Amino acid sequence: MHVKGQPYRTVWMEGDTVWMIDQNRLPFEFFVVPCWTFSQTAEAIQAMTVRGAPAIGAAAAFGLAQGFQEADPSDPWPHAARVRALIQATRPTARDLFAGLEQVWAAAESAPAGEAAGAAVAAANAFADASVESCRRIGQHGAPLLPEGARVMTHCNAGWLATVDYGTALAPVYVASRDRAVHVWVCETRPRAQGGRLTAWELGSAGIPHTLLADTAAASLMSRGLVDLVIVGADRITANGDVVNKVGTLERAICAKEFGIPFYVAAPPSTFDAGLASGDAVVIEERGEDEVHWMTGPDASGALHRVRVTAPGTPAVNPAFDLTPARLVTGYITDAGLFSGPPPLLQPAG
Amino acid sequence: MHVKGQPYRTVWMEGDTVWMIDQNRLPFEFFVVPCWTFSQTAEAIQAMTVRGAPAIGAAAAFGLAQGFQEADPSDPWPHAARVRALIQATRPTARDLFAGLEQVWAAAESAPAGEAAGAAVAAANAFADASVESCRRIGQHGAPLLPEGARVMTHCNAGWLATVDYGTALAPVYVASRDRAVHVWVCETRPRAQGGRLTAWELGSAGIPHTLLADTAAASLMSRGLVDLVIVGADRITANGDVVNKVGTLERAICAKEFGIPFYVAAPPSTFDAGLASGDAVVIEERGEDEVHWMTGPDASGALHRVRVTAPGTPAVNPAFDLTPARLVTGYITDAGLFSGPPPLLQPAG
Repeated sequence: MHVKGQPYRTVWMEGDTVWMIDQNRLPFEFFVVPCWTFSQTAEAIQAMTVRGAPAIGAAAAFGLAQGFQEADPSDPWPHAARVRALIQATRPTARDLFAGLEQVWAAAESAPAGEAAGAAVAAANAFADASVESCRRIGQHGAPLLPEGARVMTHCNAGWLATVDYGTALAPVYVASRDRAVHVWVCETRPRAQGGRLTAWELGSAGIPHTLLADTAAASLMSRGLVDLVIVGADRITANGDVVNKVGTLERAICAKEFGIPFYVAAPPSTFDAGLASGDAVVIEERGEDEVHWMTGPDASGALHRVRVTAPGTPAVNPAFDLTPARLVTGYITDAGLFSGPPPLLQPAG
Repeated sequence: MHVKGQPYRTVWMEGDTVWMIDQNRLPFEFFVVPCWTFSQTAEAIQAMTVRGAPAIGAAAAFGLAQGFQEADPSDPWPHAARVRALIQATRPTARDLFAGLEQVWAAAESAPAGEAAGAAVAAANAFADASVESCRRIGQHGAPLLPEGARVMTHCNAGWLATVDYGTALAPVYVASRDRAVHVWVCETRPRAQGGRLTAWELGSAGIPHTLLADTAAASLMSRGLVDLVIVGADRITANGDVVNKVGTLERAICAKEFGIPFYVAAPPSTFDAGLASGDAVVIEERGEDEVHWMTGPDASGALHRVRVTAPGTPAVNPAFDLTPARLVTGYITDAGLFSGPPPLLQPAG
C-alpha cells in the first residue's frame, strides 16, 4: 500500500536489517524503524511496534533469519535455537508467529552446509510474499461483493497494517477501489480504537473515501439503510464457522442480521482452526482495564498526552474479543474463494 | 442523592440564588456553582452546566423566579417577559424547559398584586419537587424488576444528574439498592461518554457497585449470561411506543432481544409525546464531528488536556440519537406504574 505516495509493507528485510512501520506511533506520527539485530526485532514484536497475526508472523520469520545471519556459519544451530526460543516468547498466542519460525527453520535445516543463513533469509521473504499473495487473493475473491457505490462497514483494523500488505477485511475494498467508487464506514472500536486510529489512517493514506463513527452509531446507520454490507477480519475461525474477533464484532453481526445486511468474515488460511469444534471452547482474553480508562493523543498544539477519559476510581471490564456464532455469518472470504458456509472451508481447497 | 456523604440535588434555589452542580467539570472535579442572577442561570443552561431535560426544566423555572424577584414588584411583567424569552432561547428543544417556565408564569399571574415573586419562587420549587417525586415513583415501580443480585445494564446517563434527583433509568437501581444487592453495567456511551463519565461517577458517589465497559463489549457480556436486564432512559417516546434516546440504545435493544434479555425504558410523563404517531417522524440530530475526535481528561498529574483520539484529518459522522422501535421494548417504567406495551401509557393514567 501507499503512504504519501510511496509503496510500503508493514515489515520487510534489507540486507541484515528488518524494517517496520511503528504502529504504536500511528496515527499521529509515521515512522519506519530499523531493527539491526534479532533482539531488536523481538523487542519490536513484543512492544507491538508491529501487530496483526500475519505481520507478526513475517516479523518473526525475518527475526529468525537475522539470527542465522548473526550465527557462526559453520554451526549456526545453537545461536539460532536461542533466537527461535526468544522470539517464540514475545507473543506466544500468535499462531502465525510459530508458522513463520517453522518455515524459516525448516529451510535452513534443508540447506547445504554453510548456506543456512541465505536459505533462512529466502524462506522469510517467501513467507512474507506468500502472506501478501494470500491477502491479494482475498481481495480478488471479495471485490465482486462491492458494486459501484458500495457502502461497507468494518470493525477494528483488518487492513494492510494488520498484515504484510493488502489486509484481510479491507483487501476487497482496495481491489474494488481500483475501478469503482467504494465508501467505508469505520467503527471506532473502543477501547483501543484501532478503527479510529489505524483503519481511518490507512484508508486516508490510500485515498479511500471513508467516515469514522463511534461504536454506538453502527446500528443507527444500518437502520437508516446506509450500510450495504459488513466485512470484518477474524482472529480465529473454528471448525463450525464460529468467529473469534475483536470485541464488538458480535454486536455488528447481530445488528446486521436484524436489518438484513450481509455480514462477511475475511481471513487467511492460518486463521481457520479445524482443531476446535466450536467457539464455545475458546477462552476470551480479559485485558487490563487501563485500556478503557486512558487514551493518548495530541492536543491542539501537537503535544501528546495520555489522559483519563472515564470517572476516576470507577472499575472497568475489558474483554478483548467476542464470539460471533456461524449462523450470523453470511459468508467467508478466503484466498481460495468465497464460501457461503463454513464446512467447505475446512476441507482442503481442491 | 449523596456526594461525599452530603445530600444534593442537581439544581436548587436558596434565597435569590440558584445553585447547580457543574456537570461540565464532572467527573474530574466536583463543584456547585451559584447563579446570582437570572442571566447567570440562563448562561448555565446554555453552557450545559446543568443538563438532562428534567434538570433543565427546574433550572429554567428557578431562573424565571429570579426574574420575578429582580423585577419591580408593582409591575414585574415587562422584565419577567424578557427573562422568559431569554431562557426559552437557551435550549429551545428541551420540552421540560417550556413546562417549567409556563408553570412559574401561571403561578405569578394568578397571585395577588405585588406577590408575583413569592408565587413564582414557590411554583419553581413545586416544579422541582414534582420532578423529584415523579422520578421517585419511577424508582418504586421499577425496583421490583431487580431481585437480589440483579445485574442491570444501562446506557448513557439517565441517573440523578440528568434529573433533579433519583434519575429515570437509575431510579429503580437507587430504590432497590436500599435493601438488596444490585450491580450496574455502565456502557461508556461514546462519543460524549456520559456513561463512563457521569453514570460511573454518580454510581460511585452513591456507593452502588458498578462496572464500566466500552460500548463494544455489551453484546459480549449479554452473550455470556452476565446481564439480567437493560434499563435506559428516553428523550422522547412516541404514541406507538417508539423510543428516541442516546445513540447506541438501538444496538443495546437489538442485542437484548437476541439473547432474550428484558429491555425497559424509564421515563417521566414529559417524555411521552402523544402528538407524534411514531418515531419515523422524528428527525435525528446530527452533531459536530469534533465530539468523536476529541476527548478531555486529566493526565497522571491531574492536568486537564483536550486531545485528539482519532486519526488526524479523518471525517466522522455523529448522530446524537437513534430510534428504538416499540417491538424491542419489554416495558415502560413510569411514575404511574409499569406498562408492558405503549398504548395504555398514552391514556390518562386513571
